[in-house]
Amino acid sequence: MMNGYSAFIILLPFEAGQRMDAREPVKQRNEEQSPISWINRYRKVRRQSESLCEPLEIEDYVVQTMPNVSPPKWHLAHVTWFFETFLLKPYLPGYRAYNDSFAVLFNSYYQTVGAPYPRTRRGLLSRPTVDEVYAYREYVDEMMEQLLHSATEDVQADISMGIELGLHHEQQHQELLLTDIKHIFASNPLRPIYAPSSPVIEPATSLPLNWTNIEGGIREIGHDGKGFHFDNESPRHQFLLRDYSLAVRLVTNGEYLEFMEQGAYSRPELWLSDGWNTVQQENWQAPLYWERQGSEWLLMTLSGMRRLHPDEPVCHVSFYEADAFARWAGARLPSEAELELALARETVKGNFMESLAYHPRPACNGSRQLYGDVWEWTQSSYSPYPGYRALEGALGEYNGKFMCNQMVLKGGSCATPESHIRASYRNFFMPHERWQFTGIRLARDCI
Amino acid sequence: MMNGYSAFIILLPFEAGQRMDAREPVKQRNEEQSPISWINRYRKVRRQSESLCEPLEIEDYVVQTMPNVSPPKWHLAHVTWFFETFLLKPYLPGYRAYNDSFAVLFNSYYQTVGAPYPRTRRGLLSRPTVDEVYAYREYVDEMMEQLLHSATEDVQADISMGIELGLHHEQQHQELLLTDIKHIFASNPLRPIYAPSSPVIEPATSLPLNWTNIEGGIREIGHDGKGFHFDNESPRHQFLLRDYSLAVRLVTNGEYLEFMEQGAYSRPELWLSDGWNTVQQENWQAPLYWERQGSEWLLMTLSGMRRLHPDEPVCHVSFYEADAFARWAGARLPSEAELELALARETVKGNFMESLAYHPRPACNGSRQLYGDVWEWTQSSYSPYPGYRALEGALGEYNGKFMCNQMVLKGGSCATPESHIRASYRNFFMPHERWQFTGIRLARDCI
Amino acid sequence: MMNGYSAFIILLPFEAGQRMDAREPVKQRNEEQSPISWINRYRKVRRQSESLCEPLEIEDYVVQTMPNVSPPKWHLAHVTWFFETFLLKPYLPGYRAYNDSFAVLFNSYYQTVGAPYPRTRRGLLSRPTVDEVYAYREYVDEMMEQLLHSATEDVQADISMGIELGLHHEQQHQELLLTDIKHIFASNPLRPIYAPSSPVIEPATSLPLNWTNIEGGIREIGHDGKGFHFDNESPRHQFLLRDYSLAVRLVTNGEYLEFMEQGAYSRPELWLSDGWNTVQQENWQAPLYWERQGSEWLLMTLSGMRRLHPDEPVCHVSFYEADAFARWAGARLPSEAELELALARETVKGNFMESLAYHPRPACNGSRQLYGDVWEWTQSSYSPYPGYRALEGALGEYNGKFMCNQMVLKGGSCATPESHIRASYRNFFMPHERWQFTGIRLARDCI
Amino acid sequence: MMNGYSAFIILLPFEAGQRMDAREPVKQRNEEQSPISWINRYRKVRRQSESLCEPLEIEDYVVQTMPNVSPPKWHLAHVTWFFETFLLKPYLPGYRAYNDSFAVLFNSYYQTVGAPYPRTRRGLLSRPTVDEVYAYREYVDEMMEQLLHSATEDVQADISMGIELGLHHEQQHQELLLTDIKHIFASNPLRPIYAPSSPVIEPATSLPLNWTNIEGGIREIGHDGKGFHFDNESPRHQFLLRDYSLAVRLVTNGEYLEFMEQGAYSRPELWLSDGWNTVQQENWQAPLYWERQGSEWLLMTLSGMRRLHPDEPVCHVSFYEADAFARWAGARLPSEAELELALARETVKGNFMESLAYHPRPACNGSRQLYGDVWEWTQSSYSPYPGYRALEGALGEYNGKFMCNQMVLKGGSCATPESHIRASYRNFFMPHERWQFTGIRLARDCI
Repeated sequence: MMNGYSAFIILLPFEAGQRMDAREPVKQRNEEQSPISWINRYRKVRRQSESLCEPLEIEDYVVQTMPNVSPPKWHLAHVTWFFETFLLKPYLPGYRAYNDSFAVLFNSYYQTVGAPYPRTRRGLLSRPTVDEVYAYREYVDEMMEQLLHSATEDVQADISMGIELGLHHEQQHQELLLTDIKHIFASNPLRPIYAPSSPVIEPATSLPLNWTNIEGGIREIGHDGKGFHFDNESPRHQFLLRDYSLAVRLVTNGEYLEFMEQGAYSRPELWLSDGWNTVQQENWQAPLYWERQGSEWLLMTLSGMRRLHPDEPVCHVSFYEADAFARWAGARLPSEAELELALARETVKGNFMESLAYHPRPACNGSRQLYGDVWEWTQSSYSPYPGYRALEGALGEYNGKFMCNQMVLKGGSCATPESHIRASYRNFFMPHERWQFTGIRLARDCI
Repeated sequence: MMNGYSAFIILLPFEAGQRMDAREPVKQRNEEQSPISWINRYRKVRRQSESLCEPLEIEDYVVQTMPNVSPPKWHLAHVTWFFETFLLKPYLPGYRAYNDSFAVLFNSYYQTVGAPYPRTRRGLLSRPTVDEVYAYREYVDEMMEQLLHSATEDVQADISMGIELGLHHEQQHQELLLTDIKHIFASNPLRPIYAPSSPVIEPATSLPLNWTNIEGGIREIGHDGKGFHFDNESPRHQFLLRDYSLAVRLVTNGEYLEFMEQGAYSRPELWLSDGWNTVQQENWQAPLYWERQGSEWLLMTLSGMRRLHPDEPVCHVSFYEADAFARWAGARLPSEAELELALARETVKGNFMESLAYHPRPACNGSRQLYGDVWEWTQSSYSPYPGYRALEGALGEYNGKFMCNQMVLKGGSCATPESHIRASYRNFFMPHERWQFTGIRLARDCI
Repeated sequence: MMNGYSAFIILLPFEAGQRMDAREPVKQRNEEQSPISWINRYRKVRRQSESLCEPLEIEDYVVQTMPNVSPPKWHLAHVTWFFETFLLKPYLPGYRAYNDSFAVLFNSYYQTVGAPYPRTRRGLLSRPTVDEVYAYREYVDEMMEQLLHSATEDVQADISMGIELGLHHEQQHQELLLTDIKHIFASNPLRPIYAPSSPVIEPATSLPLNWTNIEGGIREIGHDGKGFHFDNESPRHQFLLRDYSLAVRLVTNGEYLEFMEQGAYSRPELWLSDGWNTVQQENWQAPLYWERQGSEWLLMTLSGMRRLHPDEPVCHVSFYEADAFARWAGARLPSEAELELALARETVKGNFMESLAYHPRPACNGSRQLYGDVWEWTQSSYSPYPGYRALEGALGEYNGKFMCNQMVLKGGSCATPESHIRASYRNFFMPHERWQFTGIRLARDCI
Repeated sequence: MMNGYSAFIILLPFEAGQRMDAREPVKQRNEEQSPISWINRYRKVRRQSESLCEPLEIEDYVVQTMPNVSPPKWHLAHVTWFFETFLLKPYLPGYRAYNDSFAVLFNSYYQTVGAPYPRTRRGLLSRPTVDEVYAYREYVDEMMEQLLHSATEDVQADISMGIELGLHHEQQHQELLLTDIKHIFASNPLRPIYAPSSPVIEPATSLPLNWTNIEGGIREIGHDGKGFHFDNESPRHQFLLRDYSLAVRLVTNGEYLEFMEQGAYSRPELWLSDGWNTVQQENWQAPLYWERQGSEWLLMTLSGMRRLHPDEPVCHVSFYEADAFARWAGARLPSEAELELALARETVKGNFMESLAYHPRPACNGSRQLYGDVWEWTQSSYSPYPGYRALEGALGEYNGKFMCNQMVLKGGSCATPESHIRASYRNFFMPHERWQFTGIRLARDCI
């Protein structure tokens, strides 16, 4: 997800600072939307980001606890920079940049719009202050509303895709805000609390790990082109799979504990070679945010430290841990096609950001936990779909830029906005990364 | 290839030091072979390794010029350790190890047979001397012949697969011997010469970069089970591809030079994100072993420094460079299935180790260079085939151990023994690695 | 200085959390001071620290731009922790710690009072907030006043030395606050301004680099024991020096520029071996905070970016640069004894923190710039004076702990509180460090 | 010592490849020596180096087990390069270099005679072979004899100092050969043996750790100018010391064991700050080459693994360990002046390289072990003597180049040629280095 949002800008067939090509033929137009409805959606998404930051102290906005984490104020500014760079500068006549330095400071990795400020140094910036960042947001919001009101019909047509992109982009950063705040708080010995704890909804009984068979054959995966999607989901294409079996729920903390008690982190035979090297270099003994206290395990959550709940889905595991667990369990991870087919048969419903739990929940009868709770690691490396093609033009720079050394994840998490996810959504992270809400669903071949 | 040989030991359904299970059902038995014919094959392969080392001085056997390179004497000892560990110890009654320390020193990465000596420190070992390594080989060879002569029919049946494996293993290390010697010699300012230079066979005219269309559909890939193969080639399975187009020859030095002259190494938009980071960190300006001298480019080869030949296939490029070149050329790299289908239509013929050129040759009419010359990078990450399954038992440790963060290469190179390669062969290296004989074949979608 | 304050705690002959031994015989008692006069001094020093932070935004208090820099809020809390740990806990009956976690978080490196929080991670802490740190200060200040008021005469006698230490400790951190804020602001592309620029006082004419001869012989150096001093200044002892010659003013920017123009950073023959390695590894081209803009040099100061003034003392040079400059100039750096003798002949007067310039000033007639402006590197490594002896007891841990790999500096800087410096004061830093206000005075042998 | 030989080339007032200035006034001329006597000394020293290498296998000459270690063949070639560069090239008419590449490969760090081959990569060079290095030696030896025979009296006068230097230089590398071979052998799990074990000469009884008082006052240290010396020993000068007390023998293994048993490596209060950091980073638990086996300690020596002898001097300790031991023992390390005065009162006699023990021996009655056995760490950092002055000319590059971040050692070791050492000799190493034969003598103030 951190990287994932690069993908959509491929949709923008224009140079940064230049207008979009209204004739962009490949992607589906959104239905006509009135300026008012655009403004409402725009306001809602923008307000959501700020609302996520309400529990923060000014100091919390500033720090960067590891290279992959960005300071919250950086997120707030970067998503704003996106609207400024790709909408206001090219389309709003006479637009004046809020602050010229921001073009560098809040560029994430778009090399053709100027060398970005180094990612690893974002936490060294005390300025602009948080107040200035909010003022920047306000300024850009005003200008965006002006753009939406005043644009001619032609321009309206041109920019609607850009706004759509900008809003999905901001939603991706909403998830990152939550995962980064969690890392910042968990790194602090004072263990601050972000949100009030929501009670764990105890299922009457723990659900057994049942399996459901799914028929293979020639199937279609990828986005069908109706509504918004990122380019990495296209083109929809035929794919040949064998019959397979999927676990009906996510792997739980209790199951993962059993794996640990059977020597998980000290048995090289369970691990991929690179995984075992990582275990040793990082001295991993448990998932991220687990902490041993005497004879029991505690968990850092966005509601503070809590006792480990055995029925909750295990979370904050790397691909290497997910893969080793599956091997230990005599199963395997699903492929992305296998998961997508299963997701496509369900409606989008689950424990998302909107539930305000910010933590995965135990499975209960009737839910397969396919959507929400935790991103599910697949065994598929992130690579271009057959027929995927880089756009002409300056933004072709970013096509597939991350399609190497990453694994695909599916289904969204308790930090994902509900309106952001769909069956064909392809999230991706490197196999050692653990600070996202990532978990495990098992698969196996049909016998 | 360096990593690749791990795979076959998955075939051995026994603990190190235990006997193989004669009833191993999955893999195809080799046709009956007499002890004499086994001995002859064994001798031939073993002698080949030593013959490759004939041009070396004793000092050349010792050094390790980067972590991925092993000292030649280590290779000679390690392949011997393999026979000792997996054949002699379990099957030759009363066998006494040549030197108990060798069990650690010459174990590559088999964790269940004891902690291996650290790979990065192989070049710190002056002892055992080269003479002692040859004496070790002689001792093990004698014992192996004794085993082959004296084995009962039952044991014969049991060990034939192990010997087969040991011989293919040694062939893999023959290629590594050549690539590692090349690195050792190229790192030395005195630029030693390994082999006499064979004249470049000049084609009458440079061949144009033509394309050939190949029909897609449901096709079969993987090994069909007749004769020897590694487990990563199985199971043979159906695969759905679209029609595609393959370049009829490899990309040449001349074409790669043009890419460089158009700014290859300074244009981030041509590169994968990880590739661009590597270019900058390593300060890459050209393929490995290229050296600028005034206005011309020289090349380090196993026959010493030479002027760059524009019609020779470009070699010693990473996956990142291959991918960037393809993007620049408006094409893409082939998938492994696409290359395997093309390979399967040809007989195994080409510029292999046996040609003694140790260098790729310009394409000439009638050859597509599919086999030999250079390993061809694919766009496919190295992952398990559907239905691939880890063996029960101790060696299950190694199943798929490397199936992460690596890319598949196909077709063999000028350093590969001819009898070692086949259409279904899956070699794999990390995307930044360049010291193997690796090159580029372009592909594109049919229009 | 960063390290320097470790020294004085050697004076405290008690375990942390235990009372001081009133019979401590070695050190000189301060003259009797009334509670009121103590409170006044205490308030003044404490208020000074807060006053230095007034120009800061909350965000500026949080970041750590390199391992040697501490976030300003950390400094404010650490000096408070010092009073809490060494005065309140042992001497104020019934004292309750403000927050138990602070004992770890704000311990700098005192291993016997518990493992300190890692220095390199101070910038990862968003909590406690700045407000909480000020509340902590307020709480401790109240308790300190209570202690001072209520203490019996005996306790008064006991604690006066501890308070004296705590105040000098805080003064050292006042200098560090300034140098660390400078680094934080200079690392920010927005280049914030800390203080209004004070006009450069232009001397009528640039002063020539004259020399003054000083007679050698058996001389005394070290502190004479009257008034406060750190233990590294004692014992005062005889020292034999030869006649020597000292430059009458500091080396200027203009002179350093000439050195640069003559190839300073590209001529290995001018450098110590370790210095040359540092130049190459760090790619030094100029002193810290110098920035080339077209044909001219700019300087980052606490009043923002400014044009380089040729008559100002060169500042923010490492020992390596000072040493190389001296070699280039046909001179050498003075020894610490040579500088101390010169300092001892002057009264303490100069451009200190109190001038509010926070920047060194051009020399003017009549001033030798021996005190203030910039710390002067000596050629003397920081080592124990003959007869220097570690105290008995727990605090013996720190005796001479830093007397290795550091060079002595003398004279104070424009960031040093005037009441903090004296001729025998020994500051010390590692030879590569540059973020303090460090400069160059030349010496040479008499001919 | 590794670094130390840089110093003497300061004596050579000429550019590399240029003639020495016969009028060099500062240094004392050697008495007239006939060509024959020169040749005899030259042959003797040169033969000694080769004789030290006799026990080596060819492979042992090649490896470099850490950056500070050089392959033995490199030492043999480098000392030869020295004669070639500073004697043959400038003084032998028509001399032709043996191999032009050697000017780079075997230059250690003389930047003005061309960029040296990187020190850390010496172990990557398989070529030139050992045979070629010996042929190089033979060639240079022949040419040197030719030079000595044929030189006119003027040239004789000019070169005698250079030859003197070259021979002392080679002696320094003889010690390094021994310490580097020890590291190479100790790094090898096969633990090769370099020399037959000489029996430990058991003293009748362990000698108690007595002390001897030495009177201070104004004393002279440094070389008096008669006979050969390095420039860092000059000028001889007056120095003021207090009365002091020196231990009559070196610290033993038994005493060091007691230190370890009392928690040496886990008590931060005993260590310098940098020392404690090193202990933790390197996970030191004992001196270098000590190995725990069950309940006893073994020692790697040049005669293989041996049981620890409690009366032998402790060896292969860093300055940090020596300093911590002294603190634990309630004593301190001597200053270099203190040790020099003690050395100056003894004749040069002791356990040197010539004893062929290559290992320190227990003290016996009547010997103070001041010379030989182990280099003794002092508390003095390596810095220029007052009045030390860099030479004019190209070689001024090297003056004092290492006079930073190093500590002085005195007295020579069991690997030092006897004719190489004297009271004023200043060896120096960084405080964390342990692979030299370095040990501990205690000192304390007189009471």
